[in-house]
Amino acid sequence: MAQSKEIDVLVEEIIARVADRWTMVVLEALEERGTMRFTELSHEIPEISQKMLTKTVRQMERDGLVKRKVYAVIPPKVEYTLTDLGRGLSEAFCGVWIWAEKNHARIHEARKKFDAKGER
Amino acid sequence: MAQSKEIDVLVEEIIARVADRWTMVVLEALEERGTMRFTELSHEIPEISQKMLTKTVRQMERDGLVKRKVYAVIPPKVEYTLTDLGRGLSEAFCGVWIWAEKNHARIHEARKKFDAKGER
Repeated sequence: MAQSKEIDVLVEEIIARVADRWTMVVLEALEERGTMRFTELSHEIPEISQKMLTKTVRQMERDGLVKRKVYAVIPPKVEYTLTDLGRGLSEAFCGVWIWAEKNHARIHEARKKFDAKGER
Repeated sequence: MAQSKEIDVLVEEIIARVADRWTMVVLEALEERGTMRFTELSHEIPEISQKMLTKTVRQMERDGLVKRKVYAVIPPKVEYTLTDLGRGLSEAFCGVWIWAEKNHARIHEARKKFDAKGER
């Protein structure tokens, strides 16, 4: 699909970065809910630690996937919104979500079979 | 997109597992080349260590994404082929590859800008 090995490696590196679990979960939350405050994201995704959420949104901002808006109020209000780039990635991932939702039962079945064989 | 929080978490877990860099690279190689021997995969993806490739194809076999065929010859011949499930995932990921190929320049630009600001 890619033109050169160099581009391939670049694309792989980007996919490795953006295709991490938390990036995808944050993408989905922002896609569904639009603009969200940090605390709202944190409540929406209770299984992520504050530290990991901070790291994830910061990486996403660095990659140009989210826009961070800080309001000069007390206490500070910080809002996150997907950029066009982020929305594009969210759409691209949609196929993977749909695949995973459709096939999670098959994967679990495959794992059970594999583990039952216990070979090698 | 998902019906319940439980399914959501299950789907996230599956995505976290299958959306790792090496799984995607092996998927792409097998999608392009069809059946491949371990050594062929290893040559096709020189940036992966033997140990990591072994782990990746084993996980993919466990998840039902690849079929592993062992020929009773000396030295042993082992071939890997995508299953229907693996082909489906490969197709689903195609959108993400295309997105990454189209947008890697924008991501690098965003990173440069972010790092130049050096704020926070």
